[in-house]
Amino acid sequence: MDEEKIQEILDYEAIQERTFDELKELLEKHDHRGLKLRMEDMNEFDVAEFISELDDVPMAQVFRLLSKEVAAEVFANLEPPDQERIVNSVTDAELAGLVDEMYLDDAVDMMEELPANVVKRVMRLATPETRTLINQYLHFPENSAGSIMTSEYVDLKKYMSVKESIARIRRIGEDKETIYVCFVISSDRKLEGIVTVKDLLLHDDDTVIEELMDRNVVFATTTEDQESVSEKFSDYDLMAMPVVDTEHRLVGIVTVDDVIDVMEQEATEDIELMAGMTPSDKPYSRTPPVEMWKNRIPWLMMLMLSATFTSMILTSFEARLAAVAGLVPFIPMLMGTGGNSGAQAATAVIRSLSLGDIEPADALKVLWKEWGTAILCGLTLAVVNFFKMLLLDGLILGNHHITVAVAATVSLSIVFIVMFAKLVGSLLPIGAEKIGLDPAVMANPLISTVTDAVSLLIYIFIAKLILHI
Amino acid sequence: MDEEKIQEILDYEAIQERTFDELKELLEKHDHRGLKLRMEDMNEFDVAEFISELDDVPMAQVFRLLSKEVAAEVFANLEPPDQERIVNSVTDAELAGLVDEMYLDDAVDMMEELPANVVKRVMRLATPETRTLINQYLHFPENSAGSIMTSEYVDLKKYMSVKESIARIRRIGEDKETIYVCFVISSDRKLEGIVTVKDLLLHDDDTVIEELMDRNVVFATTTEDQESVSEKFSDYDLMAMPVVDTEHRLVGIVTVDDVIDVMEQEATEDIELMAGMTPSDKPYSRTPPVEMWKNRIPWLMMLMLSATFTSMILTSFEARLAAVAGLVPFIPMLMGTGGNSGAQAATAVIRSLSLGDIEPADALKVLWKEWGTAILCGLTLAVVNFFKMLLLDGLILGNHHITVAVAATVSLSIVFIVMFAKLVGSLLPIGAEKIGLDPAVMANPLISTVTDAVSLLIYIFIAKLILHI
Repeated sequence: MDEEKIQEILDYEAIQERTFDELKELLEKHDHRGLKLRMEDMNEFDVAEFISELDDVPMAQVFRLLSKEVAAEVFANLEPPDQERIVNSVTDAELAGLVDEMYLDDAVDMMEELPANVVKRVMRLATPETRTLINQYLHFPENSAGSIMTSEYVDLKKYMSVKESIARIRRIGEDKETIYVCFVISSDRKLEGIVTVKDLLLHDDDTVIEELMDRNVVFATTTEDQESVSEKFSDYDLMAMPVVDTEHRLVGIVTVDDVIDVMEQEATEDIELMAGMTPSDKPYSRTPPVEMWKNRIPWLMMLMLSATFTSMILTSFEARLAAVAGLVPFIPMLMGTGGNSGAQAATAVIRSLSLGDIEPADALKVLWKEWGTAILCGLTLAVVNFFKMLLLDGLILGNHHITVAVAATVSLSIVFIVMFAKLVGSLLPIGAEKIGLDPAVMANPLISTVTDAVSLLIYIFIAKLILHI
Repeated sequence: MDEEKIQEILDYEAIQERTFDELKELLEKHDHRGLKLRMEDMNEFDVAEFISELDDVPMAQVFRLLSKEVAAEVFANLEPPDQERIVNSVTDAELAGLVDEMYLDDAVDMMEELPANVVKRVMRLATPETRTLINQYLHFPENSAGSIMTSEYVDLKKYMSVKESIARIRRIGEDKETIYVCFVISSDRKLEGIVTVKDLLLHDDDTVIEELMDRNVVFATTTEDQESVSEKFSDYDLMAMPVVDTEHRLVGIVTVDDVIDVMEQEATEDIELMAGMTPSDKPYSRTPPVEMWKNRIPWLMMLMLSATFTSMILTSFEARLAAVAGLVPFIPMLMGTGGNSGAQAATAVIRSLSLGDIEPADALKVLWKEWGTAILCGLTLAVVNFFKMLLLDGLILGNHHITVAVAATVSLSIVFIVMFAKLVGSLLPIGAEKIGLDPAVMANPLISTVTDAVSLLIYIFIAKLILHI
């Protein structure tokens, strides 16, 4: 077999594609039994991918073939518009079964995304217990540990033996999101420790939980921000984390798969804020232009209006700058260099703050580092620019306005502009973090607007010094 | 107890701080036995945090108190400079024990970060088997599945019973990175399926593995990019993933805690590229200015030099633009608006591509969406700008050059500039992805440089039409 052939067989995507082709064939032949057998064997994410590509009628048909447990998992893996299609095509009894079978955190996620009339129908059909729990979970603040936790965990008591604990896991473990971390609670549900299945398997049957449980538990409180939860998962390499209320009672757990989603979401939010957009909960592919406009226009408007300062400066000095021919055409390059330098510093600082690599207390260290970099960058750019202006713009392109004095003015401006830009770019995000704002808000577009105005002032000042404009 | 008091007791950070104070007290009292007991009880990450704050001598003292297993875990949690301090202060025998006790992926990570002379010493001291494995792992391409995998997994055979499997886990599980996912392999080490401990616990003792194993395994190949590995973890909610060679033989596994690090690293890389910086492996706090200069200067230089186009355009048209007073001062605002609009589109598209939300094949859909947004944004900005120029700049600030015709020229330019910027901002990253480049390279700074030049041309063209400059 040649390399390519092997690679094709090995590639998981290729395997997946072949599976989808088989499923479509079975569907066309109306071989529902074969289809059902094949799907029960597949990963729920792949089944969801397959189903989401079908039209309404075959979608409902195929979904009905799934067993209750698999159906709930597949449903949780569907995108909200596809969930809505399913909800609208199943009977009340089927829907009730589906909701009760889902993990609570998946059900809550679904409720937050579906339209109100669909949510009403789902809530009406859920069992009273599920309804109460969903309502309770929906009330935690958005992006809090409470809003991403689930209630399906294994709880143990400290006086149980390893044997009893394993028996309990075997009895109730089927529907739990994780069985590998079990939570030891007192009679009034206070969290006392955690035990992993590894601990249980590696100890004798009659060891008592109290002897082997880990009392030093990394936990979160219900109102804690999800970003702080995901930092702890990353620091402590956790699989699951208990969430407690103000009286240290265990109310839920967060599992690592949910944290991975949180991390993606938080990184996306940072990236969007840094580019001057209001973060959106919806993926790009499902955001209509009107909503994109709503997320983008406030920033564009603010930045456009704040550019008034730059145009005021330019209005005042236009005549004097124009008096020495050759100065005005370099304004965009100077502003661009300032903006880019500031953006680099701001981005590096914002990301380090959000990963916990630096803190506001490190402001001086950061400043030192950025100024060192600024001087190196500024000098390199200035030297290259000086010769580039004389040789390329002056000699080759034949712009006779480019004198040594003009080239020196532009080059010297670069040095100070880069230094100022790195200063603003690094300090603004740290200042934001210090007063409790998201540092990502102080990002590139805002910093460019500040550096635009100041770059211009620096340029005018140096032109006055050297060229006496 | 008042709310604040409760919060303080509950907060994990507060607990951690009190623990550190206790440890420091024990250290000052030279109560090594107490210190040892206290630390064995703590999470390894916290011990590492504590140790890293100490000076060289007490650091080595405290580190020696730890048992072999805990020491290896703590060591893996230290930052490279602290690892180096430890390596330089322990004996050869201690170092050999440490390396053999570490998980292979942690040892490989360490080797990649430590200076060459330290690596040499570590390699000389490792057992021949460990040395061979480390060498082999070090040869996988950077950022491949092979480079992040580990060899400490539980392998089973399909003819084993549940009872035999659990016995095997109990026997060899102690040193494995995960026991919760076990890998079923044939006699020639080909991957045949996976079994979770949950499956084992929920089945009878004499069920044969072949009957309960999942044959539909999501796997990676050794040379597969780590970004693709982390996407699969996120899609399929995995805890561990097998890595196979070209003959489908199991060579290692990747665990979810490593994937979390990969996700952070990949997001940081994207963010850095998007701000025009060469991504660095080192955290910001450990990157000296010279290295920061190396990562930043190529982009600044390229962008500075490519701004030559803008200055050429401005040189040619300066006189004609200046002929109608009031036009030049709005150039920076127009360029800024173009740059910001383009950056928004580029950022949204780059992030969606990297999360797998859209693909290059969606180019037309994206274009449609962005143009819809561009028209909405452009019109809103234009209308606000028109009245702002007449009222604020003209009436209030008393700039008598601002006529209706000038305001109309600037406002109409905004509409076309925003449309052009959104077009370039969304298509350049998609084009990059299509030809196999990282779309993040086509990010904000590069797009601003393009939109700067084109914004100017649009402005000049519209000024010619309306004001006949």
